[in-house]
Amino acid sequence: MRKSDGRGRRPSFEAVAGNGLINRRALLGQGIAVAGAMGVAGTTGAAAEPLKDEAWSLEFGQVTPALQTPSRFEKSVTRALSNPKGEFRNSHARTPHHLLNGTITPNSLHFSINHCGIPDIDPEQHKLVIHGMVRRPLEFTLETLSRYPLVTRPHFVECAGNSAPMFSNEPLQVPAGLLHGLVSNAEWTGVPLSVLLDEAGIDPNAKWLVAEGADAQLLDRSIPVKKAYDDALVAIYQNGERLMPGNGYPMRLLVPGYQGNMNVKFLRRLKAIDQPAYTYFESKNYSQILPGGKTWRFHFLMEVKSFITYPSFGHHLKEPGFYAISGVAYSGTGRIAKVLVSADGGKSWGEAALQGPVQPKSFTRFVMPWRWDGQPAVLMSRAWDEAGNAQPLRAEFVAARGETKKPVTTPLAFPNQHYNSITSWGVDGKGEIKHVYA
Amino acid sequence: MRKSDGRGRRPSFEAVAGNGLINRRALLGQGIAVAGAMGVAGTTGAAAEPLKDEAWSLEFGQVTPALQTPSRFEKSVTRALSNPKGEFRNSHARTPHHLLNGTITPNSLHFSINHCGIPDIDPEQHKLVIHGMVRRPLEFTLETLSRYPLVTRPHFVECAGNSAPMFSNEPLQVPAGLLHGLVSNAEWTGVPLSVLLDEAGIDPNAKWLVAEGADAQLLDRSIPVKKAYDDALVAIYQNGERLMPGNGYPMRLLVPGYQGNMNVKFLRRLKAIDQPAYTYFESKNYSQILPGGKTWRFHFLMEVKSFITYPSFGHHLKEPGFYAISGVAYSGTGRIAKVLVSADGGKSWGEAALQGPVQPKSFTRFVMPWRWDGQPAVLMSRAWDEAGNAQPLRAEFVAARGETKKPVTTPLAFPNQHYNSITSWGVDGKGEIKHVYA
Repeated sequence: MRKSDGRGRRPSFEAVAGNGLINRRALLGQGIAVAGAMGVAGTTGAAAEPLKDEAWSLEFGQVTPALQTPSRFEKSVTRALSNPKGEFRNSHARTPHHLLNGTITPNSLHFSINHCGIPDIDPEQHKLVIHGMVRRPLEFTLETLSRYPLVTRPHFVECAGNSAPMFSNEPLQVPAGLLHGLVSNAEWTGVPLSVLLDEAGIDPNAKWLVAEGADAQLLDRSIPVKKAYDDALVAIYQNGERLMPGNGYPMRLLVPGYQGNMNVKFLRRLKAIDQPAYTYFESKNYSQILPGGKTWRFHFLMEVKSFITYPSFGHHLKEPGFYAISGVAYSGTGRIAKVLVSADGGKSWGEAALQGPVQPKSFTRFVMPWRWDGQPAVLMSRAWDEAGNAQPLRAEFVAARGETKKPVTTPLAFPNQHYNSITSWGVDGKGEIKHVYA
Repeated sequence: MRKSDGRGRRPSFEAVAGNGLINRRALLGQGIAVAGAMGVAGTTGAAAEPLKDEAWSLEFGQVTPALQTPSRFEKSVTRALSNPKGEFRNSHARTPHHLLNGTITPNSLHFSINHCGIPDIDPEQHKLVIHGMVRRPLEFTLETLSRYPLVTRPHFVECAGNSAPMFSNEPLQVPAGLLHGLVSNAEWTGVPLSVLLDEAGIDPNAKWLVAEGADAQLLDRSIPVKKAYDDALVAIYQNGERLMPGNGYPMRLLVPGYQGNMNVKFLRRLKAIDQPAYTYFESKNYSQILPGGKTWRFHFLMEVKSFITYPSFGHHLKEPGFYAISGVAYSGTGRIAKVLVSADGGKSWGEAALQGPVQPKSFTRFVMPWRWDGQPAVLMSRAWDEAGNAQPLRAEFVAARGETKKPVTTPLAFPNQHYNSITSWGVDGKGEIKHVYA
């Protein structure tokens, strides 16, 4: 360990938990000394030394395109598709979290699930109707909605079936993006639903809205009016531009923190009624079956959760030394309050630094400094939200929610829903990383 | 005006300035009544009424792609190119702000300027060297940098030449994206430069860093060490994914709030020296020539600025009634403190609502409710930052910085730099919008 650096500051590498976890003050960077940053011979002093020019420094470069796309060297950074040929069934596209960082999911990589393909909607023809128990039924076009005061907020959207392979009785060996790729985080801009319901003059006896999409299934879900008045939006922009077709173009319902399927895409109707509609998705597909055979009806909330994205399955630690463990945490209840990280399989925990500003119902990136000593380690993260909810340990989660009797062999399986327990990455002595249960 | 709404609340349409500007409390949406939201006949009551099914609701939809792209109906939402064929000169690509919303610029639409095309860099071969007046010269790969504690922050990057057509003595008639499209805002993730300089043990007598890129020009700029220790990053992710090729893939310098050219892309070298290097761009291209013939050397800061994006040139107001005026404000000094909006060409001003959380050196979206009475109006915005700097009025700006003697006829002209005065949009009685000087 270096005692001081060029500015005369002292490093603070106080251990805070077992197996190399360091106090997060080390993130201030005082004397980190990543061994991988190699000393360079012959480059000291103030005189100019020419560097080797690579091929791209010796030729005029490529044409600037009207729409930028990633480098050809990033071809592996794509969504994993469950139905790449568009067969007559549903299609899942998963966000590759193990290859991303920050908190925003770029639009090209935002997850999507569509049950009847992606409708090719003409935004000038599409309309949203608000009717039912209202004083004044109204019809909105995309242009009309654009005249309202729009609000902009970052929010995650998560499919209730995200992380479903974690119900397996043995850990499935796939990257974080295949385990947890059915959640993404974007900056959404739209009209508060409360404004539109006020415009229509909703009946005080209306307790539910049936939201219906314009896809071939006319996918519909019941939304509590209370939630609509809390923080729901009719979103018309995603990370600054119009919605992606797979994410609901030209308009979608956003019910922050509620299961993805309720954020009805291609929104064409909101009907105010006095009871839930018991649609297909809420009465069958998203009813949680419990080990005793009972069912949770209307389990809307996506609960507090976190997972480590770096290092994780598929990454390789080339040598012992300093690493910054990093991942995302989020809760449908509100803000993330705390994330603890363990490097010894849960025996001891240290508190990670949270990347601010911490926003409600949005990804919060956490970072935990770690000195890997080259020995086997098990990395885990556990999040708490501002309401005091803790991400459950795996043993307590399995006791409450069950697990499969035979191992799940594909990330496309959905043995159950609403998994929010801990993900553990086992590092072996060679720096290879496996998915483990700890 | 409606007296109350379905929930029994009262609207608050208090005028705060001339020509229809309304108190921003109206943004809470109580009784806004956008005339364009049409009443729908025959849709009242709780019984189900079928809506007309459009073609896309009647057929199985399109295939889900590995990388999402915008709808075919959004083809006009592209960057405006100055050199679409990649001729042997520089290339500008401008962000279409008049078609966007929120605060994030999606990566596909982030502006770029490249003087020698876009280098096709292999990230496994690219290296960053820190040398010169340091105790321990170091070489970093993309993989090494990924092991450091990364920080994530939203920041704008703005070319010093952004808005240059505003130096014209007559207003150029083009959309906001062509006037102001050389600024964009993204969530950047990278290693604080202070950490890397500490690693290398920078000499206390080193006051400047020469940052050099790996493009064919080896573009270089001098950066004060003080700025490097303040908030500079070596950025390796942009809105969650690897940098776009045109924005510096695989790594770029980020000096938040300083002119775009200093945020050296394709960063391959940082050399610590005791004086500025007087490179081409800092000693010629970006020296501000003042009306008296003197020059500002090292005018690094991009000062407080705002412009209205909606409604703006190219939009059409179909009818009198409620509109939400919206735009972006930013300052290289820090946070935006206040934005005032005028609808009468600057005679009176009302305070706009700011979309929070307001972040330093980042876009802040402002919104101002407005009732257009169908008469001519001139819309303007003016921003203040937390240090008390005000966006200058046009008359005072022209007095200090000058204007052209003949009108500028193309948005590609650069008569001068660092324009941060006010943009005015003139609405005529038909709802058509022109660029005016007020």
